[in-house]
Amino acid sequence: MSRDARFNQAMRRQQAAVQARIAQAPEERSLLLLLTGDGKGKTTSGFGMLWRALGYGQNVAVVQFIKGTQASGEELFLRQRHPGIPFFQMGTGFTWDTQNFAADQAAARRTWAQAAQLLQQSDLDFLLLDELTYMLAYRFLEEDAVLTALRERSPRLSVVITGRGGGSALRELCDTVSEVKNLKHAFDAGLKARQGIDY
Amino acid sequence: MSRDARFNQAMRRQQAAVQARIAQAPEERSLLLLLTGDGKGKTTSGFGMLWRALGYGQNVAVVQFIKGTQASGEELFLRQRHPGIPFFQMGTGFTWDTQNFAADQAAARRTWAQAAQLLQQSDLDFLLLDELTYMLAYRFLEEDAVLTALRERSPRLSVVITGRGGGSALRELCDTVSEVKNLKHAFDAGLKARQGIDY
Repeated sequence: MSRDARFNQAMRRQQAAVQARIAQAPEERSLLLLLTGDGKGKTTSGFGMLWRALGYGQNVAVVQFIKGTQASGEELFLRQRHPGIPFFQMGTGFTWDTQNFAADQAAARRTWAQAAQLLQQSDLDFLLLDELTYMLAYRFLEEDAVLTALRERSPRLSVVITGRGGGSALRELCDTVSEVKNLKHAFDAGLKARQGIDY
Repeated sequence: MSRDARFNQAMRRQQAAVQARIAQAPEERSLLLLLTGDGKGKTTSGFGMLWRALGYGQNVAVVQFIKGTQASGEELFLRQRHPGIPFFQMGTGFTWDTQNFAADQAAARRTWAQAAQLLQQSDLDFLLLDELTYMLAYRFLEEDAVLTALRERSPRLSVVITGRGGGSALRELCDTVSEVKNLKHAFDAGLKARQGIDY
């Protein structure tokens, strides 16, 4: 077979496989996604999904459960260029900067109350719950209450959760679980974290 | 030790570890990143980095080496909301829809010429080369020429490459290699691909 024929055959095979998978998956409903793993890029990827949803004209919102003392590029971009998007932050700084369990837990619960309200908002299409998993890991929030609110969310609302871990019950509930892994990282080669790349 | 004391100790340890890693990585230069793996979300994550860089006021640009027949949410968002960003697309449709090696290769080379020019642009901070790895895998582009252009890029320019694979030479050259893996995907549960979530 010629190179062109082999190429065409391979491409037709790929095309057929993609079409078959789409045809066999007829149920269309909102999705629950978890972006997890030890690699960098989970928050950035979650925000990437948010901007893409906005590209499709969807109604989007963000709740950030951990926030550094400096504004992230995501926050700056949202506040400066897309200030109309509902955006809630826990606003306590990274927990390892505050070192106060009771204050952090109270902040987490106030922030969750915002998220719970958004989960019921019937005209919302896309909600990013950034770093929610840590709120469960630190036991700032009750897992059962969180899972119930996610399960009973507004039917058209897709939700993306980011953060390491998350626990087996959350993974079980999610339709899609995606893991980010660093195979190699510039940090390991002695390069300094760089604005716009690492944070 | 009380719960609060244990919590504080754990948080202080994390804080110290992060600060030590930042202090020990003093070299600051532009970075080359590869977002790879079989999971979904590589392009979305690369665009997420671009919007974040824009949040920091950086000069950014995109070259897309594979483009579906429908505009993606990323494309719609960029064209409608941020039309000032330099954006080049191969514009042939997915290769498994065209089934013509010679035409695809010519398109890839024309598109690479745009990328090569951007790699030399001295005031550019961030360049996304979306799906570049496939151009190498299909042998549309010469690996040596691509690696040389990446290595000899403008000093302040950070580059993010997305796509499965990429080859060992590209991985070797990259400062950071990040892998996206699907642990679980809605497709597998019979859910239809959903706009704003899956594409």
